[in-house]
Amino acid sequence: MLTTNPFEDDKLREECGVFGVSGADGAAALVALGLHALQHRGQEAAGITSYDGTHFHTHRAMGHVAGNFDRDDVIRALPGNVACGHVRYSTTGETALRNVQPLYAELASGGFAVAHNGNISNALHLRRELVQRGSIFQSTSDTETIIHLVATSGYRDLLDRFIDALKQIEGAYSLICMTPQGMIACRDPLGIRPLVMGRLGDSYIFASETVALDVVGAEFVRAVDPGELVIVKDGELRSLRPFSAIAPRPCIFEWVYFSRPDSIAEDRSVYSVRKAIGAELANESAVDADLVVPVPDSGVPAAIGYAQQSGIPFELGIIRSHYVGRTFIQPSAEVRRLGVKLKHNANRDLIAGKRIILVDDSIVRGTTSLKIVEMMREAGAAEVHMRIASPPTTHSCFYGVDTPERSKLLAAKLNVQGMADFIKADSLAFISIDGLYRALGEAERRDVLPKYCDACFTGDYPTALTDHNEQALTQLALLDEPA
Amino acid sequence: MLTTNPFEDDKLREECGVFGVSGADGAAALVALGLHALQHRGQEAAGITSYDGTHFHTHRAMGHVAGNFDRDDVIRALPGNVACGHVRYSTTGETALRNVQPLYAELASGGFAVAHNGNISNALHLRRELVQRGSIFQSTSDTETIIHLVATSGYRDLLDRFIDALKQIEGAYSLICMTPQGMIACRDPLGIRPLVMGRLGDSYIFASETVALDVVGAEFVRAVDPGELVIVKDGELRSLRPFSAIAPRPCIFEWVYFSRPDSIAEDRSVYSVRKAIGAELANESAVDADLVVPVPDSGVPAAIGYAQQSGIPFELGIIRSHYVGRTFIQPSAEVRRLGVKLKHNANRDLIAGKRIILVDDSIVRGTTSLKIVEMMREAGAAEVHMRIASPPTTHSCFYGVDTPERSKLLAAKLNVQGMADFIKADSLAFISIDGLYRALGEAERRDVLPKYCDACFTGDYPTALTDHNEQALTQLALLDEPA
Amino acid sequence: MLTTNPFEDDKLREECGVFGVSGADGAAALVALGLHALQHRGQEAAGITSYDGTHFHTHRAMGHVAGNFDRDDVIRALPGNVACGHVRYSTTGETALRNVQPLYAELASGGFAVAHNGNISNALHLRRELVQRGSIFQSTSDTETIIHLVATSGYRDLLDRFIDALKQIEGAYSLICMTPQGMIACRDPLGIRPLVMGRLGDSYIFASETVALDVVGAEFVRAVDPGELVIVKDGELRSLRPFSAIAPRPCIFEWVYFSRPDSIAEDRSVYSVRKAIGAELANESAVDADLVVPVPDSGVPAAIGYAQQSGIPFELGIIRSHYVGRTFIQPSAEVRRLGVKLKHNANRDLIAGKRIILVDDSIVRGTTSLKIVEMMREAGAAEVHMRIASPPTTHSCFYGVDTPERSKLLAAKLNVQGMADFIKADSLAFISIDGLYRALGEAERRDVLPKYCDACFTGDYPTALTDHNEQALTQLALLDEPA
Amino acid sequence: MLTTNPFEDDKLREECGVFGVSGADGAAALVALGLHALQHRGQEAAGITSYDGTHFHTHRAMGHVAGNFDRDDVIRALPGNVACGHVRYSTTGETALRNVQPLYAELASGGFAVAHNGNISNALHLRRELVQRGSIFQSTSDTETIIHLVATSGYRDLLDRFIDALKQIEGAYSLICMTPQGMIACRDPLGIRPLVMGRLGDSYIFASETVALDVVGAEFVRAVDPGELVIVKDGELRSLRPFSAIAPRPCIFEWVYFSRPDSIAEDRSVYSVRKAIGAELANESAVDADLVVPVPDSGVPAAIGYAQQSGIPFELGIIRSHYVGRTFIQPSAEVRRLGVKLKHNANRDLIAGKRIILVDDSIVRGTTSLKIVEMMREAGAAEVHMRIASPPTTHSCFYGVDTPERSKLLAAKLNVQGMADFIKADSLAFISIDGLYRALGEAERRDVLPKYCDACFTGDYPTALTDHNEQALTQLALLDEPA
Repeated sequence: MLTTNPFEDDKLREECGVFGVSGADGAAALVALGLHALQHRGQEAAGITSYDGTHFHTHRAMGHVAGNFDRDDVIRALPGNVACGHVRYSTTGETALRNVQPLYAELASGGFAVAHNGNISNALHLRRELVQRGSIFQSTSDTETIIHLVATSGYRDLLDRFIDALKQIEGAYSLICMTPQGMIACRDPLGIRPLVMGRLGDSYIFASETVALDVVGAEFVRAVDPGELVIVKDGELRSLRPFSAIAPRPCIFEWVYFSRPDSIAEDRSVYSVRKAIGAELANESAVDADLVVPVPDSGVPAAIGYAQQSGIPFELGIIRSHYVGRTFIQPSAEVRRLGVKLKHNANRDLIAGKRIILVDDSIVRGTTSLKIVEMMREAGAAEVHMRIASPPTTHSCFYGVDTPERSKLLAAKLNVQGMADFIKADSLAFISIDGLYRALGEAERRDVLPKYCDACFTGDYPTALTDHNEQALTQLALLDEPA
Repeated sequence: MLTTNPFEDDKLREECGVFGVSGADGAAALVALGLHALQHRGQEAAGITSYDGTHFHTHRAMGHVAGNFDRDDVIRALPGNVACGHVRYSTTGETALRNVQPLYAELASGGFAVAHNGNISNALHLRRELVQRGSIFQSTSDTETIIHLVATSGYRDLLDRFIDALKQIEGAYSLICMTPQGMIACRDPLGIRPLVMGRLGDSYIFASETVALDVVGAEFVRAVDPGELVIVKDGELRSLRPFSAIAPRPCIFEWVYFSRPDSIAEDRSVYSVRKAIGAELANESAVDADLVVPVPDSGVPAAIGYAQQSGIPFELGIIRSHYVGRTFIQPSAEVRRLGVKLKHNANRDLIAGKRIILVDDSIVRGTTSLKIVEMMREAGAAEVHMRIASPPTTHSCFYGVDTPERSKLLAAKLNVQGMADFIKADSLAFISIDGLYRALGEAERRDVLPKYCDACFTGDYPTALTDHNEQALTQLALLDEPA
Repeated sequence: MLTTNPFEDDKLREECGVFGVSGADGAAALVALGLHALQHRGQEAAGITSYDGTHFHTHRAMGHVAGNFDRDDVIRALPGNVACGHVRYSTTGETALRNVQPLYAELASGGFAVAHNGNISNALHLRRELVQRGSIFQSTSDTETIIHLVATSGYRDLLDRFIDALKQIEGAYSLICMTPQGMIACRDPLGIRPLVMGRLGDSYIFASETVALDVVGAEFVRAVDPGELVIVKDGELRSLRPFSAIAPRPCIFEWVYFSRPDSIAEDRSVYSVRKAIGAELANESAVDADLVVPVPDSGVPAAIGYAQQSGIPFELGIIRSHYVGRTFIQPSAEVRRLGVKLKHNANRDLIAGKRIILVDDSIVRGTTSLKIVEMMREAGAAEVHMRIASPPTTHSCFYGVDTPERSKLLAAKLNVQGMADFIKADSLAFISIDGLYRALGEAERRDVLPKYCDACFTGDYPTALTDHNEQALTQLALLDEPA
Repeated sequence: MLTTNPFEDDKLREECGVFGVSGADGAAALVALGLHALQHRGQEAAGITSYDGTHFHTHRAMGHVAGNFDRDDVIRALPGNVACGHVRYSTTGETALRNVQPLYAELASGGFAVAHNGNISNALHLRRELVQRGSIFQSTSDTETIIHLVATSGYRDLLDRFIDALKQIEGAYSLICMTPQGMIACRDPLGIRPLVMGRLGDSYIFASETVALDVVGAEFVRAVDPGELVIVKDGELRSLRPFSAIAPRPCIFEWVYFSRPDSIAEDRSVYSVRKAIGAELANESAVDADLVVPVPDSGVPAAIGYAQQSGIPFELGIIRSHYVGRTFIQPSAEVRRLGVKLKHNANRDLIAGKRIILVDDSIVRGTTSLKIVEMMREAGAAEVHMRIASPPTTHSCFYGVDTPERSKLLAAKLNVQGMADFIKADSLAFISIDGLYRALGEAERRDVLPKYCDACFTGDYPTALTDHNEQALTQLALLDEPA
């Protein structure tokens, strides 16, 4: 089958978005709206759990929020003034539905629901130990490990059991949990994945991005701090910091691609950071040309920044269809070749005879960059220069982002000139890692204690990678990842 | 239910797109790709009919092309090297499916399929006469009238019967018909609705817009001329012009909104016409401001034109969600108010404290312009100036465009200042009708024989409106339409 | 795929059941109940049309009445105090749905709906003439011919047009029509297919069988006479007899198999006729045995009659599953062989070592009779004697019953001893044609003017067979049917 | 909503049927056939798990076996030569699907699947203990308790862990388990629920009833003994008897109603036991009448036995529709009253003026017996005498049969004359408990060590009822059950 979104295929994919509400009538309706605003963080499944003070109610579905959670009957079946939800990538089938979050279990302390953005990098290791002791897992999700650690903890109080569980896990996690003892929102000690807090009337809201607060009309309060637990119960908010303090490392790719441009991440407007990256890129890698053309839609802010800095006009040289489907028929090799045009088409009249600068956010495998460059040439472009608003992606992510294995990453195999040849561009440039930090207001990247997790560009992973390393020991073939 | 696309609700809606292929293996697959590229012309139903030399095969479905026609089994059930298809607006249910085109009938001359873009303005009149003589209609579509006229014509030869039918109908029609005697593409004498012709290898392609030729890799040949019949049979192409020649009047709204910006309509790039409209608007209605902000996505090209002409920076002040659903839950008045943000959200950090010029393509009822202006103010805009890339829409369309009745059109009730007050903008300006013609390369609109159908702006309808007038005679309440 | 109802496969299949109500609130609900009672006459599709005095409303669906017409929303969408419905055999897909009755058309005289049990034996001939004159058919159903004849009739009054149409058609038809001029129920001049009339309060009911009157609590009034038109309008009933009188010939197979045993057909209890056939069979073809075993369920009444007459005990030697599906997996030849047991299973403990008389209603192809005999032998039966409650089926039906072509009928190829050998029975006997007439209260079958249509047993067709004969002239290969 | 099976509503409902195959290619296909034959034991959900030597595969669905497991794609997705399946009653929705068996878990010893017929009467007690120790339950099924007991057992070997689990549970269980260590079939020490063993070529089959062996062509070997574990691995069969021997108490209701008449339960033909019950009833409660009429279908064998013993003719006075749906519309009180006729209809012509003896298998609430008696009177019966082929049902079942709570049982509230008055019969008689034992070949019921579990008739429960009693202590309102 021919995909109608061939360019999207060459993106890193965020694994999840989470949203929680405590203390609002019809909480599940607010969660549905919030998840809709976070849909770009996970498009293949969604779920909402509500708590009415006595019972927990859950609805989970494959597919988008709209179409599954925009129906009155679904929302009415999720009563209560506390609710949380989750959007994620996943595969199809019954097994997959069991992996759709929020996960839920009946513990001795009562119901326990959890929605998780991130990835626990020692989940398999812990799972093996738990199964050996008699725990039965319902899913293949790393998140379920947390629930079993809580269930079997030696502590008596639920919050103690929960902290006991967190201290055993490593990796990236922004969690929203629901229990009869209150809603718990927390973030791993490094704050790798985002989580913000808002207020709507008397209720508290937690969300992966501020745009979800906007959509429900909530006021942004602050980010949940790295290593912080926030507990809300009956309108009262408590904050705990059970971990020893270390310097945070939020994921830098949120500004490059994951977050929506209208979100504010760690106090910085995503849109203006992207424009600043474009301006840095214009300074670092200037080229004489007639038009600046964004690869829609993620390349648009950086292209505007590049155009404003360089004085070269910004023009829509590629038009994107709004009606994308998953896949499309491919009756012949000839038709298959046409697939790329289902989603993007050259604005032929504008491009013909012009020297153009294409601006895109990143290159992963490089296959679709090649197709876009070819599309520009077919439309008559005189020169095609590609500018990329992130450094070369050379390493896999183990913190909840779906990356190809390292051997598939173009930048892990070729230098910049080799990549330019591969995508057939007249020139290719990436922003430097220091340029990227400058766009975020830093002077440069300090190699000791850098301010962000930038492991996908640098290989500098901020946590242990237990499962990955254990796997590497047994499967030498997988040793292409960080030593 | 709260719609997630409240802004789209204030657009005129094109009723149809058509696409036909004669002489290509796997013709139905090409039609599916072509219809996908025309999806913006009709999003609620689609159909394809193929002809394998012996039998006709039809598949019709409510919903988008992707999701219905991207499956191998569907396409394999549409064999043959001749096929045509249709996308349309429509309502739900069994009755509606009967109205989804292509329509098909078994005539004495064999099978007859037709896909129609436009509207026959004396269809009800003709239908009453045909029923009186014993014809039984399967649908409520005006298009079926054509088939019955062919079926009951006194002529012997199919082509003569078809021309006999065309001579009885009035209004707008771009038709693609399939018969054992060949594929017939034709356009009404005024050429109100578009239809272009392309070549792909040895096959001929007909489509509503050139973008559909691009998607299948076909070469654009020329537009089908107003009043022309093109017949393709076994690779041979014939052209007939059975009507006496009159000056054409193609629909000017194709450049304003209907066509995709990457299409070439009547030899003019839609994108560059829209930019030219924006530039004219900057000249006609300049205002001192900090940012030019498009209402996405249809306002973008005119906003770029406005920004380039005025020197005021182009910025994305409104971010559009790509994950729109049909409707959404509305548990409370408060949540209902949030609906507008599901699709568009202010880029708050950018807007705050700025004087902004919003550029949109048109105002129909004005309700959503009001919401956008309010959204800008909530985000802290200092001033909000609205500029519209078309003249005021004062009259209904009877040629295949879904317009509200005249009493619902804001511009039919209020002058420009009244409209500015209604939408709460600091200023409001529309491009002049002459400015619009200038953007299309004319010196001005000549009131005698204007070059385009611009009845929605001027009330100058180029054909008789038999059904409308007969209805008006019996229903005086409907007399608010053209004088 | 392996069918779970292999025995049913060797039955003649009634094509339709009809049910109409005039003058009862919630008429559609009564029709749904009535059709449910007639489900055995057609299990693959059903439809109901209602008339609320202004509009006609139709819902049609593939599948059973239960599951499609037992939902409140469906019934509420069929308002009015006049309604009629239809159950039928048919194939799947969109095309098929167009053939599901009631058929409906907008004529110059207003709406016209028709539900038809029977078959018009010159429908193709008439259809060709109508298409030549410009009529466009929506379906491939013979019933639609009637509507086009009404639509194009030269008469002015609707009833005259309807009678004009009837006079042109030949074959078998029990019709229920709905028009703004009233409900019309009629039966062909020979009365081949059944139609009865009942009363429920002030309303009139028409149905294929009396059992449908029982289910809605209506009182049986009388059969509609052969050649009679009954018109009900506003509670008034009129009867017309536009045909010259001829001796009726109702289908004798209604008593053999089609009708439910609890129906009264032409004043004779179906159950008691079947018992009488069994008793005649015991007299005509006695055999010494231990048990009388019915082939469930249609063989049960005749088996009871046989057992009572012969004094041999009636026993359930074959148990039928109530959970039959359409088809079943057949992963291997071995499993395929088991298929027959999914529906019927030998009562092994009872059968072992016994001489048994199997009683079934008819043999069509003989394949399943063979399987049942084999099943009895596998269960240890000492002797297996087969007795059939109808004469040998030697000819096809052209009056609305789905029969295999003549060359597939076992009795058209073999004599009784040959058939006994084929099904591997120790003995085989059919009731004689005179015996069958005796069970119906006649002395014998009179070859001149027999009282029933028994063409499937005798080849004595009571009407012309225009389509069949025209087809035979052009397709000599089809000449295996009656000269 | 009006049910179309109002009579079935007054039956006790068997909770489950199980079927397993070890050592046959395409095992899942055989399981599908076997479950189809057991469909009467549970009609609302079904599931199959297969094991291919490496992985376990499960498909579960709401609804019948046919329609869910008769599709090639479903069966192909269940590879392996070991498989087991389950049919059950249950409610709708996602939660319910989690309860559909076979249940499956990944234990430290590998996969573990279980299909269970019966009910564990201390499941809640054990569940509370397990949750306290950190076990997380996926379902609300009592069966899951067994899995957690195995998972957390202190023994090392899987079989020891399994026996350890069995020794902690009380109640009724026939289990088929699948593990990498082999298939385990076992039956509780009292053998309350049935389980038989068969052979098909080299493979072993386990099933709830012999009829399922018949359907797959397997040879009946013997019943699994009460308290026996049978382990099959690689074609080798082992038998363990870990419990101390006690006198078995198989459920007597299997012969009264649950089992199919063509099954052999504990060496006795169900059909001939039912006929014997009918004969005993004719002796115990003779009455002068014209006809013996069974309430179809479960009353038929006893009615035949009654008719043969009494010499009064057996006749089909009630005709049952084969096309039953779940529910039906009820637009008015009048139509609602008709509901009962959707499934059963009086054979009016036969009944009118006759004295009839109705034979049914049991009376639970009595509501539908009343409707049947009324139906007979409406059809003109002169006298209606009801004879019941079981003793009065006075107590609830706690061993896997869905019974109403005791206060809803007619026989718990009224004596026989009161019940006769309630159902408006001219006379009513039940078989005596000794008569029932005589029909099973015993001289009488011995109150010390009776041969069967007959608690529903006698209140003599053969096991402790821990959950029921604990519930009773906390909820005094529930104290209407056994003293």
